[in-house]
Amino acid sequence: MTPDELKSLVRTIPDFPKSGIQFRDITTLIGHGEGFRASVAWLADRVSQSGADAIAGMEARGFIFGAAVASALTLPFIPIRKPGKLPIETIGVDYALEYGSDRLEMDPGCIAAGTTVAIVDDLLATGGTACAATELLRKAGARVETATFVIDLPDLGGGTRLEGCDVRVDALMQFEGD
Amino acid sequence: MTPDELKSLVRTIPDFPKSGIQFRDITTLIGHGEGFRASVAWLADRVSQSGADAIAGMEARGFIFGAAVASALTLPFIPIRKPGKLPIETIGVDYALEYGSDRLEMDPGCIAAGTTVAIVDDLLATGGTACAATELLRKAGARVETATFVIDLPDLGGGTRLEGCDVRVDALMQFEGD
Repeated sequence: MTPDELKSLVRTIPDFPKSGIQFRDITTLIGHGEGFRASVAWLADRVSQSGADAIAGMEARGFIFGAAVASALTLPFIPIRKPGKLPIETIGVDYALEYGSDRLEMDPGCIAAGTTVAIVDDLLATGGTACAATELLRKAGARVETATFVIDLPDLGGGTRLEGCDVRVDALMQFEGD
Repeated sequence: MTPDELKSLVRTIPDFPKSGIQFRDITTLIGHGEGFRASVAWLADRVSQSGADAIAGMEARGFIFGAAVASALTLPFIPIRKPGKLPIETIGVDYALEYGSDRLEMDPGCIAAGTTVAIVDDLLATGGTACAATELLRKAGARVETATFVIDLPDLGGGTRLEGCDVRVDALMQFEGD
């Protein structure tokens, strides 16, 4: 399937979560067997070219594409979780949201020093979560050089923000004007 | 890799989340590239034999194996989510936990009538979540005949409970005495 065909499988929900926002919903893309597989194949190809040794994905939607790519490439999958979910002593990082703050946590023992970890996620908006995940993975001893997304919303500036964290960004599709 | 080798990749955390419970942690299994891929291949083989048309997985850990299996088999993936996460009008089901209750939600439009949906999850304990997911999927018009797990804790009775909902259960590994 072409990138344009895959883009047409993403559903747009107007005015969600608030008025004026066009929510790009991947439920319909992953609900299409060939569309889901082709998206995973595209992401896997980019991650493979980057030479990464492992994939990290952020709870919860990020697990969907991240885990599928890791399994397709026979690479370890590192889940980055919301607070209190992992049954072991974690390391974490707090980060600011539009209103308030949030926290990501991971198992510090799951990365050998110098491992190159690629971030895979469904959507790049402002880049806040992906930057926090980068910081957390580096704290655990990983190199983080690339982040690969299904959807980029370039008007929200996430790509520029991630470049400022020395992370190269790639995305299967873009929606402008968001 | 053999099932016993895969079982040895699961980490046991004693006394989590409370005294006397042995928590079986898949973080170390998915953190092993070959172990993760071999587990997904085993699950995919069972789902393929069942003749399912789609895979459902429950937020959040269930997304990890479910999505990887769906992508490997070029099947649609149906995310079953916690309340308030989906950007559309959902259908839901409430179910009892040991203390209190919880709710699962899904997009009612993502299943064509008569689709056979296989549940894939990491862990079968009492079966409460998998039974609720079965009820929800059937409410949306799906046939649910099988549920395939990485880990079964048979002493907690989940297999018997799911059989009572007319769902066949299969698991890659069992831990007895839990």
